[in-house]
Amino acid sequence: MTGSPGRTGPATSGGGLDAPDGFDTMWTDLAPLGRLGDGGYDRFAWTRTDDVLRTWFTAQAASRGLDVEQDRAGNLWAWWGDPDAAVAAGTPGVVVGSHLDSVPSGGAFDGPLGVVSALAAVDALQAREREPARPVGVLVSAEEEGARFGLACAGTRLLTGGLDPDRARSLRDRDGTTLAEAFGVSGHDPDSLGADPRALGRVGAFVELHVEQGRGLVHLERAVGVASSIWPHGRWRFDLTGRADHAGTTPLADRDDPVLRLAAVVVEARAAAVRHACLATVGKVDVRPNGVNAVASTATVWLDVRSGSAAAVQAVVADVSRVAGVAPRCESSTAATPFDPTMTARASDLLARAPVLSTGAGHDAGVLAAAGVPTTMLLVRNPTGVSHSPHEHAEREDCLAGVEALTTVLSDLLSERP
Amino acid sequence: MTGSPGRTGPATSGGGLDAPDGFDTMWTDLAPLGRLGDGGYDRFAWTRTDDVLRTWFTAQAASRGLDVEQDRAGNLWAWWGDPDAAVAAGTPGVVVGSHLDSVPSGGAFDGPLGVVSALAAVDALQAREREPARPVGVLVSAEEEGARFGLACAGTRLLTGGLDPDRARSLRDRDGTTLAEAFGVSGHDPDSLGADPRALGRVGAFVELHVEQGRGLVHLERAVGVASSIWPHGRWRFDLTGRADHAGTTPLADRDDPVLRLAAVVVEARAAAVRHACLATVGKVDVRPNGVNAVASTATVWLDVRSGSAAAVQAVVADVSRVAGVAPRCESSTAATPFDPTMTARASDLLARAPVLSTGAGHDAGVLAAAGVPTTMLLVRNPTGVSHSPHEHAEREDCLAGVEALTTVLSDLLSERP
Repeated sequence: MTGSPGRTGPATSGGGLDAPDGFDTMWTDLAPLGRLGDGGYDRFAWTRTDDVLRTWFTAQAASRGLDVEQDRAGNLWAWWGDPDAAVAAGTPGVVVGSHLDSVPSGGAFDGPLGVVSALAAVDALQAREREPARPVGVLVSAEEEGARFGLACAGTRLLTGGLDPDRARSLRDRDGTTLAEAFGVSGHDPDSLGADPRALGRVGAFVELHVEQGRGLVHLERAVGVASSIWPHGRWRFDLTGRADHAGTTPLADRDDPVLRLAAVVVEARAAAVRHACLATVGKVDVRPNGVNAVASTATVWLDVRSGSAAAVQAVVADVSRVAGVAPRCESSTAATPFDPTMTARASDLLARAPVLSTGAGHDAGVLAAAGVPTTMLLVRNPTGVSHSPHEHAEREDCLAGVEALTTVLSDLLSERP
Repeated sequence: MTGSPGRTGPATSGGGLDAPDGFDTMWTDLAPLGRLGDGGYDRFAWTRTDDVLRTWFTAQAASRGLDVEQDRAGNLWAWWGDPDAAVAAGTPGVVVGSHLDSVPSGGAFDGPLGVVSALAAVDALQAREREPARPVGVLVSAEEEGARFGLACAGTRLLTGGLDPDRARSLRDRDGTTLAEAFGVSGHDPDSLGADPRALGRVGAFVELHVEQGRGLVHLERAVGVASSIWPHGRWRFDLTGRADHAGTTPLADRDDPVLRLAAVVVEARAAAVRHACLATVGKVDVRPNGVNAVASTATVWLDVRSGSAAAVQAVVADVSRVAGVAPRCESSTAATPFDPTMTARASDLLARAPVLSTGAGHDAGVLAAAGVPTTMLLVRNPTGVSHSPHEHAEREDCLAGVEALTTVLSDLLSERP
């Protein structure tokens, strides 16, 4: 199926490569969940699809003898070994994992590849030993993409205290449902939402494996790389207010049409990105009332900006704000986040000097690193670089190389005395 | 409440003006139906709200002794007197009416003012005589705004054969529901949809009363006017295709971002409208997948263009198409539609030389006039000119003047031998 849309996971006819137990079955399980007609996935936090994904993960963990707990931020943790005993002994466990939620019409790999690989790495370790030297945790974080409530990495930000629980509860989706309401419908108590120092304290080190969202590894001809840092990045929302009017009768001079300012924001975002050598994207807009024969009353535009330089990010936001004529609301802003340099170098060494890359993509690994958790990331080659799309893909042999790399790094961390 | 949003109808404290029976009660009935938090109305065709509005109309007709029939196009007709006997006698009836559906977050008056005024005019006539000289019909047309299925005046276009029933059945709303499916859910047989020459043949003349969607009558200091014609106008849809990508990792040069072309279309639509002295509006867009951190895969833009000159309309569409880089799909295009000049002149005379205006707004009256039905329109003053908005308004005394004018014109038509 190379090049075709609607990848459901790595192809299963991989030329006789041995896969860890359950690897193919896990992809087969996940393939239909949240799948759209265009071949992409809608897997949004605290929806029925998300409930099914979380139930699937809990069953996978149970089949490996792992207990699953949900922390106060809604993230799931499957532990092999006793994490609290390890904390008491001064050797907290090692956690691997990623997320299962998606952007709208997202790909099969962004998130799930890290979860499946984490479970497959546990399989590989369990095939060797009955108990790990230190407890091993598998994390499935909540609302990583921010596709429903607008705030990326909401689960890990809540966990680490970076997101105020009252703000989290009041975040609204497009239909006006609050995160608190959605959390309640999924069977949880929204009043319990908040930071969870106990769950965070169990994490002695964290490794997230992720499909690469670019072609760095393609150019380097390597299946697996290590991420050194995440660029400064953020999201800003411009609420442009005009006046609703009839499209057939209101003279042009009498109009206050916010769609014209929306267009100006889009044009300036690209021009400013070029000027300041950033990435800037308008991927989401909301025009109200969105009627063909009605001058709009409001237009909302979301601006995503990323760069190696935080000053350049701020310059783009300032330039676009001038054109918009209003100050934006900053929905999230993340400083440059270096991963643990020792872990990163060690992982690269262990993986036959795997290349070390920086990335413009935000991840839970960045939130945990910023909260002081020793963290690194492994990246798996993406042949087209396309991500956040039904076309997102990774080859089966690269995915299996990722599992092997994750197992190697995890095994090394377990043998360490921190 | 002058100037406040969320008008539900003309204020009831109108300085002691006598209203026809039921006038205030009808507005009170309609006030909560489909009402939104912002004070506007969502009354879309073949929804539960629409079902309730149609049931309300049927009950209103019944309370006046009028039978209601739904034609094959989904329009409702309440007849006082026997329309078929009149056709057989060569004196088909006179129809008044309008629509009850709205644009998204529309006003209380656009459509309902015509229906309420038609029923109030029937009340006035019934107070004078037991049987009309010719049958009187009250029309509630289906999907006039095109807010749900994208095609304005869908009900009267179907009725008159201007819209192919297969095309009508396959029209889709934003959620992918077809008109056929929605029609079925409302309890009707979608296979029966089609032109209805028998229902159309009953209409000897048609008068639609409508709130003005501009300030022409304000400048002329008149409560009621007569419309002479509708401008050429149409809707064009541009499907802009790009490639979904990750906003945080895809270099600007590697992107094919359809939102940039959306912005160019919006900018050019305004520039071309100024150049060609037209009205051009982008009031509706649809960006997919509409994720903050995803370069969009597609952007759809709807362009509404109107002018006294059909050539100017075509010039705007051509200019915008050049910038869009794709040919648009024409969703509807209507030539200049003059109303019946004799009826228009006679109505103006009867109403103390009411001013005669042309309009950029499309109406069912235009569709019926284009199909050969002798037609005219009455317009009621709109103090702000604002329409398709929660702020849309008409003063109570102007609405009552409209009822009186409609009663006068209707009464005159009934006394005619056609």
